[in-house]
Amino acid sequence: MSIKSENPGFCRSRLEELLKKRFFYCPSFELYGGVSGLYDYGPPGMALEQNILEIWRKHFVHEENMLEIGTSIVTPHEVLETSGHVYKFRDWMCKDPSTGEIFRADHLIKEILKERIKKGLESGLGCKDMSRDACGERYDKFDSCLNEIKQYESILSQIDNYDDKGLSRVIEEHDIRNPQTNVRVEGPVAFNLMFATEIGPTGNMTGYLRPETAQGQFLNFNKLLEFNNAKMPFASVVVGKSFRNEISPRSGLLRVREFTMAEIEHYVDPLNKDHKRFDEVENVKMKFLTREIQMSGKEEIIEMTVGEAVFRGILDNTTLAYFLARIHLFLIKIGVNKNKLRFRQHMRNEMAHYASDCWDAELLTSYGWIECVGCADRAAYDLTVHSDKTKEKLVVRELLSKPMEVKEWVVTVDKKKIGPLLKKDLKVVEQAISSWSNEDKIRYRDQAVSEGKIVVKVADGRQFEIPSSLFTIEQVKKTISVREYIPNVIEPSFGIGRILYSLIEHSYWIRSDDIDRCVLSFLPIVAPVKCLLVPLSNNSAFDPIIDKLSSELRRLGISYKVDDSSAAIGRRYSRNDELGTPFGITVDFQTVNDGSLTLRERDTTKQIRASEKEILKVVKELSEGLISWDDVLKDFPIFNKQNTDTPEITDLYTRE
Amino acid sequence: MSIKSENPGFCRSRLEELLKKRFFYCPSFELYGGVSGLYDYGPPGMALEQNILEIWRKHFVHEENMLEIGTSIVTPHEVLETSGHVYKFRDWMCKDPSTGEIFRADHLIKEILKERIKKGLESGLGCKDMSRDACGERYDKFDSCLNEIKQYESILSQIDNYDDKGLSRVIEEHDIRNPQTNVRVEGPVAFNLMFATEIGPTGNMTGYLRPETAQGQFLNFNKLLEFNNAKMPFASVVVGKSFRNEISPRSGLLRVREFTMAEIEHYVDPLNKDHKRFDEVENVKMKFLTREIQMSGKEEIIEMTVGEAVFRGILDNTTLAYFLARIHLFLIKIGVNKNKLRFRQHMRNEMAHYASDCWDAELLTSYGWIECVGCADRAAYDLTVHSDKTKEKLVVRELLSKPMEVKEWVVTVDKKKIGPLLKKDLKVVEQAISSWSNEDKIRYRDQAVSEGKIVVKVADGRQFEIPSSLFTIEQVKKTISVREYIPNVIEPSFGIGRILYSLIEHSYWIRSDDIDRCVLSFLPIVAPVKCLLVPLSNNSAFDPIIDKLSSELRRLGISYKVDDSSAAIGRRYSRNDELGTPFGITVDFQTVNDGSLTLRERDTTKQIRASEKEILKVVKELSEGLISWDDVLKDFPIFNKQNTDTPEITDLYTRE
Repeated sequence: MSIKSENPGFCRSRLEELLKKRFFYCPSFELYGGVSGLYDYGPPGMALEQNILEIWRKHFVHEENMLEIGTSIVTPHEVLETSGHVYKFRDWMCKDPSTGEIFRADHLIKEILKERIKKGLESGLGCKDMSRDACGERYDKFDSCLNEIKQYESILSQIDNYDDKGLSRVIEEHDIRNPQTNVRVEGPVAFNLMFATEIGPTGNMTGYLRPETAQGQFLNFNKLLEFNNAKMPFASVVVGKSFRNEISPRSGLLRVREFTMAEIEHYVDPLNKDHKRFDEVENVKMKFLTREIQMSGKEEIIEMTVGEAVFRGILDNTTLAYFLARIHLFLIKIGVNKNKLRFRQHMRNEMAHYASDCWDAELLTSYGWIECVGCADRAAYDLTVHSDKTKEKLVVRELLSKPMEVKEWVVTVDKKKIGPLLKKDLKVVEQAISSWSNEDKIRYRDQAVSEGKIVVKVADGRQFEIPSSLFTIEQVKKTISVREYIPNVIEPSFGIGRILYSLIEHSYWIRSDDIDRCVLSFLPIVAPVKCLLVPLSNNSAFDPIIDKLSSELRRLGISYKVDDSSAAIGRRYSRNDELGTPFGITVDFQTVNDGSLTLRERDTTKQIRASEKEILKVVKELSEGLISWDDVLKDFPIFNKQNTDTPEITDLYTRE
Repeated sequence: MSIKSENPGFCRSRLEELLKKRFFYCPSFELYGGVSGLYDYGPPGMALEQNILEIWRKHFVHEENMLEIGTSIVTPHEVLETSGHVYKFRDWMCKDPSTGEIFRADHLIKEILKERIKKGLESGLGCKDMSRDACGERYDKFDSCLNEIKQYESILSQIDNYDDKGLSRVIEEHDIRNPQTNVRVEGPVAFNLMFATEIGPTGNMTGYLRPETAQGQFLNFNKLLEFNNAKMPFASVVVGKSFRNEISPRSGLLRVREFTMAEIEHYVDPLNKDHKRFDEVENVKMKFLTREIQMSGKEEIIEMTVGEAVFRGILDNTTLAYFLARIHLFLIKIGVNKNKLRFRQHMRNEMAHYASDCWDAELLTSYGWIECVGCADRAAYDLTVHSDKTKEKLVVRELLSKPMEVKEWVVTVDKKKIGPLLKKDLKVVEQAISSWSNEDKIRYRDQAVSEGKIVVKVADGRQFEIPSSLFTIEQVKKTISVREYIPNVIEPSFGIGRILYSLIEHSYWIRSDDIDRCVLSFLPIVAPVKCLLVPLSNNSAFDPIIDKLSSELRRLGISYKVDDSSAAIGRRYSRNDELGTPFGITVDFQTVNDGSLTLRERDTTKQIRASEKEILKVVKELSEGLISWDDVLKDFPIFNKQNTDTPEITDLYTRE
């Protein structure tokens, strides 16, 4: 598609206009003024999402027999308290006291400092390459300005790490004001990003809309493991909506309050993170931006095979590496521009509270590099906290081929002596002791050694002092035939709306021969509509042919659209190029005579002419990605006689 | 399937146990004690739902080129205030003051009165057919009891129509108490069934989780109409989650707080509700329970073709009739038992506040007849209220083939005289007048005639008296070439969870030869997993064959499951019968030698043996519903040699 590389400059507002006009998506509740961060998908946007998800399911779920489940959106407080979201899933907001307007603190600071840097650079323009003498006072001004710019840039590079105190200091020291009112903002104050609600009528059961789909999967771990015949490793999957009550969302589909996610939780033995199918992907070449390189202040991307990345220690293990490669292959499969795709490692302080390592697949858009897929190693964090909280084990029990000798801490109580001491409380103390973890036992042993007694806290909160002489805590050897462990979780997590929007940008171009003709070059497998049916005019002789073709396409499972409006054929093709429809079948008077049809391809606008049977076969194979348009042109000559894209002839047609 | 008709008595708790064991679904957040009315779907439940939805989309959306869109769940207050949900979407709750426990008033009354009727009948048992003399005192007791029973039955038959006053009277007169504490309940108080939340950080934007998907569709009406090239009729569709904060949900999947709906809004000209494809369905036979029959106190079902139902005036128009028939065909297609399907018309006082007629597709389950699909005629209600509220027209403009003469009410103001009277307020008064509807104009004309003046209320609430001499309101003839109308909406609305549960009940049976062996006889097209792969034993010779078959099945898009556990083959088949897996391929030592495979069918347990190629072809065609098992048995002889279902031989196998 050489035409595409001649694409004139990208203009986001023109693309947005197209997406609105063709109803890819629009602000929700627009009749009522809209709500920021909420969008509705029109028919083409919805079909695009569904096609992406269908390919996603084939590529991930079916290919590896992952266990897809459906979990509740409304989630009770306790679950999200345990997972850490109630306390840690928040942003900092500040407020203009004069208007009550609320800003996300880091976004406001970023916006203002960037503006100051821009103005500073402009004001000093030209001074940089001149001597002090030649510039005079202006040079001094610029010089001091340069210092400020350096300060601002340093703040901007670290702003994601600032807590409330850090942000507060910046607001004060750098006098951050609401640009509209010029009033200094107050705050920052924490704002939890979960939508809260009340479950049931009692008023004492708070819930939230889930901020991610992961927790519902972790809570079902035992059932999933059993369903999988207790075999490891395996993965569970949820595709569904999640919600984040963003403080002041902008950036279109990239920062929204309600969004479709597709999340995989892959459970793996922490002692063996090798992936048995890694050899299938080890030669996949990918672009990496490592933590080390980012720490050195650079944005240098290294391209190498995923196998090499594992060998060089850039990726910790082949399971993580396998999924990064599979994510890469998936994004390429749906049509992402591979020159606008990179994998960036999270900085240590940037990771979510549950993650021990994280790589993002980022796509380059007019908003910059956008995180579209996260691939986090959540380690055993979630399963451990839920297990601790509910006292329900979430573990794998592995039958060892050979029994294994392990050392274990054992508490032995001298019942004869302790009984008279505790009397009726003996039972609760014994219960408390039996619930000790290994770490507890070591801690109590240390206490017994250093203080000659321990203080045991029981379930109802009471404490009992027990002298060291009444018990022993010692390490003993034990032979086990079953190994019990909490699995680690590798989590590839896809933001479908972000992928969809980035894909649209990657697919958008303008015909070099006509600045008014925009095209969305979706691959046939993701295109919302595969085939356009265009009768030459509204002559009724075409109706039965269009009806028959429609029913044939339905039977073949090919999505189609009839455009029998009175617009010129060229215009009808043009507006369906804007919908990204890859193929168009024209029905004309020759069709009425001999049944032959014209098939047009969107990107090249080239056409072939053949019988209905041949055309339908070709369209089916093209739509499923089994053959390419180049393959078609090998079998059929280009048809030039009636170039329906030339306005002159189009006019002739409409005069029929 | 003759075996199925010999099905022993249905036992719901056994089915529920099976569904839990095989992880069809489970209470959400079970580790934390669960939340009533919230359920998670495990892998088979999820696959079943996806298969039902895939067939649904083919049957409805693709077949008629409906416009599927995706709309937001979080919905601002104003939208749902206009639609009527903020005030009218509620149930009545009452409270036990001693415990604070809350009940849904009608459910509690129903439960208690039904229990009293049952006890009353039991106490009088035997008296009915005896004379007074023979019974003595017992007869008198029974007689007074009979009166009470009649009263209770009358209340039960009308309870759905009771408002708060009616419910309150029943609670007092019939002394309704909490059965656990024996304390009289207080109330009832209205409880809105929508989950409320706050959008954004300001605290002054209330929103709700949508209680239905319809409103998001109506708000996009203008965009949808434009996308459809302004052609009528057409339909929009949303498949997604809706939420109802039920007071105290029970009945498993039938009354839940979060559920998947598939809703069609079909927009139609109110003057022409003929459906152009009605002839395709007019001979479909269906079972109807009309409003008239219900009003006569009977439950008599009439069976007739949908064409006859239209002819007899039971169904108002062919668009409504077309959709009822299409709903019927869909339910049969996914495997619903047609003897347990009926269409019941809503009583006038039972309909939702927006509906002008409504029919439910009801499925018979162990909970009784359950509404699974509603098909309401919402008339122009929703488009009208949103249009009135937002002052944005939601109309169709039809270019008339011939100009049409219409009568219209026109207001003419004598500007010269009214100007000096109103001065600077002239403009707001003129604005008010221009917003009058036809009904407003008639009302003002009547006022002008009877009172000699009118009182005009303007936007800011002020009122102006205007003498009749300063204006005229008269009906004039006008020729129009464009007809403008608000379309009516026919809404088929599918509760997917209810359909799924009912289908499970309809598919469940127990083998007559073994009471412990339950089967879910899903049709192949809806079955969660199409094909089971069973290696005879864990002999490693089978591994490469199973791997190859797996990859072939993936390539063919057939969902499969490998059961290579150490259980006996018969047991492995049994547990996959409980998952509803229709076909099973066994790999044995003969396979290693000659590549042949055994294929078993779930319901008959009959088997055939053929080459891998033949077996895969047959499984593909069976899974897609292109052929039946009977067709297969015509081409292949039944294979009896190794009946893997007979325990004796199974034991032999496992001894290998």
